[in-house]
Amino acid sequence: MTVSSRARQVHPVVIAGGSGTRLWPVSRDTMPKQFVSLLDSGRSTFEETILRVSGQGFARPVVVTHSDFRFVVAEQLAGLGVEADIVLEPERRDSAAAIAVGALIAAGRDEDAVCLVLAADHLIPDGDLFTADCQEAAAAAAGFQRIMLLGIEPTGPSTAYGYIAPGAPLGDSGAFTVERFAEKPNRETAETYVAEGYRWNSGNFVFPARLMQEELSTYAPEVLNAARGALEAAVRDLDFLRLDADAFARAPRISIDYAVMEKTRRAGVLKTRFRWSDIGSWDAMFDVKDKDAAGNVLEGAVSVLDTHGSFVRSDEVLTTVVGLDDVVVVTTPDAVLVTSRERAGEVKSLVAKLHAEKRPEAGQHHRIHRPWGWYQRIDIGDRFQVKHICVKPGGILSLQRHYHRAEHWVVVRGTAEVTVDGAVKLFHENEAAYLPIGCTHRLHNPGKIPLKLIEVQVGSYTGEDDIVRIEDIYARN
Amino acid sequence: MTVSSRARQVHPVVIAGGSGTRLWPVSRDTMPKQFVSLLDSGRSTFEETILRVSGQGFARPVVVTHSDFRFVVAEQLAGLGVEADIVLEPERRDSAAAIAVGALIAAGRDEDAVCLVLAADHLIPDGDLFTADCQEAAAAAAGFQRIMLLGIEPTGPSTAYGYIAPGAPLGDSGAFTVERFAEKPNRETAETYVAEGYRWNSGNFVFPARLMQEELSTYAPEVLNAARGALEAAVRDLDFLRLDADAFARAPRISIDYAVMEKTRRAGVLKTRFRWSDIGSWDAMFDVKDKDAAGNVLEGAVSVLDTHGSFVRSDEVLTTVVGLDDVVVVTTPDAVLVTSRERAGEVKSLVAKLHAEKRPEAGQHHRIHRPWGWYQRIDIGDRFQVKHICVKPGGILSLQRHYHRAEHWVVVRGTAEVTVDGAVKLFHENEAAYLPIGCTHRLHNPGKIPLKLIEVQVGSYTGEDDIVRIEDIYARN
Repeated sequence: MTVSSRARQVHPVVIAGGSGTRLWPVSRDTMPKQFVSLLDSGRSTFEETILRVSGQGFARPVVVTHSDFRFVVAEQLAGLGVEADIVLEPERRDSAAAIAVGALIAAGRDEDAVCLVLAADHLIPDGDLFTADCQEAAAAAAGFQRIMLLGIEPTGPSTAYGYIAPGAPLGDSGAFTVERFAEKPNRETAETYVAEGYRWNSGNFVFPARLMQEELSTYAPEVLNAARGALEAAVRDLDFLRLDADAFARAPRISIDYAVMEKTRRAGVLKTRFRWSDIGSWDAMFDVKDKDAAGNVLEGAVSVLDTHGSFVRSDEVLTTVVGLDDVVVVTTPDAVLVTSRERAGEVKSLVAKLHAEKRPEAGQHHRIHRPWGWYQRIDIGDRFQVKHICVKPGGILSLQRHYHRAEHWVVVRGTAEVTVDGAVKLFHENEAAYLPIGCTHRLHNPGKIPLKLIEVQVGSYTGEDDIVRIEDIYARN
Repeated sequence: MTVSSRARQVHPVVIAGGSGTRLWPVSRDTMPKQFVSLLDSGRSTFEETILRVSGQGFARPVVVTHSDFRFVVAEQLAGLGVEADIVLEPERRDSAAAIAVGALIAAGRDEDAVCLVLAADHLIPDGDLFTADCQEAAAAAAGFQRIMLLGIEPTGPSTAYGYIAPGAPLGDSGAFTVERFAEKPNRETAETYVAEGYRWNSGNFVFPARLMQEELSTYAPEVLNAARGALEAAVRDLDFLRLDADAFARAPRISIDYAVMEKTRRAGVLKTRFRWSDIGSWDAMFDVKDKDAAGNVLEGAVSVLDTHGSFVRSDEVLTTVVGLDDVVVVTTPDAVLVTSRERAGEVKSLVAKLHAEKRPEAGQHHRIHRPWGWYQRIDIGDRFQVKHICVKPGGILSLQRHYHRAEHWVVVRGTAEVTVDGAVKLFHENEAAYLPIGCTHRLHNPGKIPLKLIEVQVGSYTGEDDIVRIEDIYARN
């Protein structure tokens, strides 16, 4: 590979650590919106983002995510057949630290690397335009030594986004200097911005890795030092690069906008051509979906009567609306949200209220994902609980023991290898294993298809914390 | 007992056969609103109705219901410790036939009997006023030989009820002749009616049994003949009196209003004093409930933000509303209804649409009640299904066999007596029974507390119709 061909490759840094409460109840802390199949493609926005930067012209992606999401990131990458560097943040320190880590990793690969920083939870329907715009931004970033913002052409006077006023042209492409940044405006101001040719600030960037380091060094040296320290002391954990917690904790919690962009003299903006949405609310999601004749978006087990301009979505539970317009109704197996499209932005406040009320549904999904597969509660009562458990081919649950419950496992699909107090036995479909209280046991799917079983727990306490983990191949605590 | 004391006793006839789709999804064909615990008392309106007529001055109630509801009627009566004659209609033939049956049964007990016909799905909060009004109505019915309607004082110009214009006073009590009946009016007309002292037609009556027979004989002889024939050929079935299907089918489908009330010269109306609602919609239900400071009625697992004048109810699934006013949201484990209070009357049309769409949730409840207890599905997938089954003390399921599924039963509460191919064995909590495909089996709760078990079905077909019933103590087909 020649230096010039390497220089043309853009190094994608995908920021996938957000918690996305504004699309509750589908998006929750334990499985935020970037990993959920919300699009008509059936893929998550993280998957779409990865696919978008997996073609020609892009280097191996760097994914920066929170430690909690490492297994879902690995699983979705594997599902796409894409290899990436997965970097785990021990805690959230806002975007400046994450971007600093990405820039340092890219620079470590190639000191002339150009980075493309992308949020994992945005929607960009136009793949080819996106790629072309990124190449232009990369050329401008390298050629004019600029941190280029991808500036979206407004489709209306949105009050949900920050704006960028383009300044002087950089060469004869779509690149410009930045005249000024403008915070989220009110409606009237937004209309002025749109009339004056301002662009939406998408929060996606293209920059030479070295330039970003220089600017961080000038305007936010603590961020850069913390990122460097966290990377130097990072440890490999399975397929993940786990940043050093102590070093990373020294990074100030600050966004890249405040840390660098509003101070640097090297900001630029590309007038992009692709369509874009941050799908930051159910109303924004409604906007990007196709409507039926009544102007509704109806997804899943839904039936409506004399209802217009509404977004109604349900996974399983039959959800009905009669005689309402412009509402949002989202049903999951354990939670229902009803609001208006206009007020959909306030779902974030609702989730804060639910957290204050100590409702587990505020942050926890009904289906709990684990490195070996997932489980969900299907029934609970006095002294018992029933779960549906799915183990991926090759998946192995930790070797464990419970002090307060016995378990019955009925295999309904696939084959289970069950270890009880050292004895190993296979159970096929329609066979049941019994695990007495206190026994040491382990569940393994040795087969080629997912293993599904129904677990009936019986005992005086069925909480998740009655698990003594003796051994775990996924290195969980 | 003297003749005079017998004459003072009123014979309650409780009409409990309706299907109540307007309170869907809580009320459905398989368990309509009159049997559902919808009130703050925790009791069903059927139970409240029975309690209302179980005190001094009332004879043993006659309950006329549809054959499908016989076990829930028997169970709720038993729960109250009240004995009643339970008469089963083989099919619905509207109110004239049901009332004719009630009148004939009362006359069979005492030829001078005075009947009180009550709908099982109305709400009457003022028990003492109700009893006093009934005694007055009974005295007027007997003394003036009238079919007395209980005429409710309007609380507003409702367009949901028919009206009665009182005529000349009958004696010096609250009884009057009927000047005319008026159908459900529009708003303007309703206001005139209220101003002119009209009363709401509650559809509840008090009459001498003999007089009702005479009037039926004059104005609707086919109804009377069908009722008489159905009673004469009725058969005892367990504790029920099952009307003869062929004879009963000859009764015209007609309401008592059209069959008798609008023709007879012997109608009367009592100006009652008790409060009353037919709770014929979620909006009517909202009206009779206490409101919180925001004017909301919130019941169950509910959390709202900036929401006013709304009715939000959920059995289990966390249900949230943000920034909406005057809406109705009702969540059950398998269905969600979202509408406005204003449009709540259209739920009936929604249910018709759901039936047309062949949604089982239209008519069938998540929890299926059986004479031996109940069951509900908690999970279903390819080649398996999981149910939670509850068997009452003494309950016995039919002796049965399945051709397409094996079953695993895990007892989580109580004790099960399980018969498999003739062998009987007890299973206690935390024990599991296995029923291979094709075996003959029976489940019995021999104990003193409810038996709860988790049933895991595994097989190529798990539909309800794969049951061959060999023997059934509840005489089901």
